[in-house]
Amino acid sequence: MSNNLEQKIDEILSRGVAEVIDKADLRKELLSGKKLRIKLGIDPTSPNLHLGRAITLWKMKDLEDLGHQIVLIFGDATGVIGDTSDKDSERPMLQEETVKKNLETYKEQVAKIINIKKAEVHFNSEWLAKLGYNEIGEHADQFSLAEFSARENIRERLKAGKRVSLREVLYPLMQGYDSVAIKADVEIGGTDQRFNLLAGRNLQKHFGQKQQNIIMVNLIEGTDGRKMSSSWGNTINLTDEPNDMFGKVMSITDDLIIKYFIHCTRVPMKRIKEIENQIKSEKINPRDAKLELAFEIVKIYHGENKAQKAKDYFINTFFGYNTS
Amino acid sequence: MSNNLEQKIDEILSRGVAEVIDKADLRKELLSGKKLRIKLGIDPTSPNLHLGRAITLWKMKDLEDLGHQIVLIFGDATGVIGDTSDKDSERPMLQEETVKKNLETYKEQVAKIINIKKAEVHFNSEWLAKLGYNEIGEHADQFSLAEFSARENIRERLKAGKRVSLREVLYPLMQGYDSVAIKADVEIGGTDQRFNLLAGRNLQKHFGQKQQNIIMVNLIEGTDGRKMSSSWGNTINLTDEPNDMFGKVMSITDDLIIKYFIHCTRVPMKRIKEIENQIKSEKINPRDAKLELAFEIVKIYHGENKAQKAKDYFINTFFGYNTS
Repeated sequence: MSNNLEQKIDEILSRGVAEVIDKADLRKELLSGKKLRIKLGIDPTSPNLHLGRAITLWKMKDLEDLGHQIVLIFGDATGVIGDTSDKDSERPMLQEETVKKNLETYKEQVAKIINIKKAEVHFNSEWLAKLGYNEIGEHADQFSLAEFSARENIRERLKAGKRVSLREVLYPLMQGYDSVAIKADVEIGGTDQRFNLLAGRNLQKHFGQKQQNIIMVNLIEGTDGRKMSSSWGNTINLTDEPNDMFGKVMSITDDLIIKYFIHCTRVPMKRIKEIENQIKSEKINPRDAKLELAFEIVKIYHGENKAQKAKDYFINTFFGYNTS
Repeated sequence: MSNNLEQKIDEILSRGVAEVIDKADLRKELLSGKKLRIKLGIDPTSPNLHLGRAITLWKMKDLEDLGHQIVLIFGDATGVIGDTSDKDSERPMLQEETVKKNLETYKEQVAKIINIKKAEVHFNSEWLAKLGYNEIGEHADQFSLAEFSARENIRERLKAGKRVSLREVLYPLMQGYDSVAIKADVEIGGTDQRFNLLAGRNLQKHFGQKQQNIIMVNLIEGTDGRKMSSSWGNTINLTDEPNDMFGKVMSITDDLIIKYFIHCTRVPMKRIKEIENQIKSEKINPRDAKLELAFEIVKIYHGENKAQKAKDYFINTFFGYNTS
C-alpha cells in the first residue's frame, strides 16, 4: 500500500512534469498523510479551456484522487490585468464584462476533469479587490526590477525593443498573493508561469507562511505545431463537439502523438510505452496510434459512446471505408 | 500693467527655474487672466521642511500672488510608498504612523511662505486609498518599463548592480494620478521629479484632461556642499531657531551665496545682481554678503527683529566685535 502510494506520487511528480520546486520536500509532504492544499489559478482570458490548459487540471485530479484538497481560483481580478507570461507581446487589458462572460462556463468545463463538488472554489477578486496602494506597495517591495526584467519573455521583448507595460509588473504580485490568501501548500502551473509561481513562494515567506511547493507542467503544441494558445486559434477545446475534437486530434503531427498521450489522457504509462515502441519499430501505423489517441481524448469529454461514433464518422468520411 | 504682469511672469518662469514644460503654453495661460490650479505635492518623509524644499513653495507663493489657486497635496499615501527619485538607493517604506506624525507640523511650516488660508489642501489618500488593482493596472498601462528603467537614477542604480524594488514603479503612478484627481493646470517640482511630473501629463491625457504644464526648479546644496537632503543631515530647516538658522547659512561655501539669494529669498533680482557684481569685483567681502543673506533668510521665517538679534549674536560670538 505504502509502496503503491510511492509509485503514484512518483508518477504525479514526473508524468508531463518539467520541474518541481522543491521536489524532496513535496515528496515528503505527499507521503506524510497530511491533507495538502493544492492551488490552481485559471484566468478567463477566452471563453474556452483547451487541452493545453487541461494539463494542469489533470495534475489537480491526480492529487484530488490522493485525498488532497484542491483549491481552484478563477482569476476574475487577474484576468482584467492580464498575464503576458506566455506571450511575446503585450496583452490588452480585458473589460470586466468580458472576463465575467468568459467565466460563466468555466466551472462546467473544469468539472469535466475534476470533481468540482469536492473542490474549494474562489474568485480572486475576493481578496485582490480589497488591496490598495499600501498593500500592493508592500508586496511589490519583495521583488526587484532586475528579477522582473530578467524573465525570459520580458528580456526578449525588451531586447527586441518591444513595449513592456508597467501593468505587467503587477501580475505576478497578484498571482503570488493568491497563494498567501488561500495558504497554498502546492501550486500547479505551466513552465511559462515560473516567475509567477515563485512569486507565491516569495510572498508567502514575507507573510510568514511555509512556502508552497511547485509542480510545473509542460506546455503542448496545438494543431498547427505552435504552442497551443487561444490567441492563435490552434486549440482543441474541452467543449468541442465530438467530431470536431476527433478530427482536430487526427490533424496533429505524428511526433506529438506520445506527448499527447502523456499529457492529455490518463492512459497508463505502460501502455503509452508500448505504443511508442510499436511506432518506433514500425509495428503500427502512426495513423492508427492517433486513432486510439483521438478516441481516448473524445471519450474523456464526451463518453465512450460518442467517442466511438466520432471515430466511425472520421473513418467513414476521411478513409472512405470502415475499419471496425 | 499688462507689461508689469509680463515681467512678473517672466521672472516666475526663470528665477530658480531649470526647465518649463510647455513654456509657451504656460506663458499664454498665465497671461490669459484664467485662474489656474497650481499643484504642489509634499511628502512627509521627515519632520522638517528645509530651504531646499521651500524653493517650490516660493514658486507657489509667486503664483498665489498673481491670483491663481494653489493646491497643496500632503502625501500621506505617497509618503508610505516612498519616492526614490532623488536617492541613489532604495528608500524604506515608512510606517503610516511616522507619516502622520511628520505631517502634523507641515501645515504650520508651509504657512511660513504661502497663505494657507487661501490654499486648497488635500491629503492624497483621499483618492489614492480608493484605488485597487483594476485602476492601478489601468494607470500602469500608460507607462513602459523601458521608460521607467531609463530614468537617470534608476538606470545608474541598475548599472551599479543596486537593487531597485518593484515598489518604486508605483510611485510615479501615484503622483501622476494626484494631478488627475485635482485637475492640475500646473505642477511645480524639483528637477529630480522630472519623471513623476511627466507622469501627471501622461495620466491626464489618458483621462481626457488638458495636460498640466510643469515648472521644474533647481535643487540647492546644503551646509556640506552636497544636495540638501534630510537623509544627509545637511539641511537648514524652516523651523530652525534664529541663531541656528543664521549660523548654518553663514557656514555655506561662498560660491553658493548668489544661488541662495535667488532660490531662498525674494530679494529682488536687481539687488542680487548688484551683490554678485560687488563680490566679483571684490568690492565687498563675501562674508558680508553672507551676513546679508543670513539676515534675509532668518527675517522670512522669524521676522526682522529676531533676524537682527541673530545677526548680532553671530557677530558677537564669532567675530568678537560688533559691526552694527
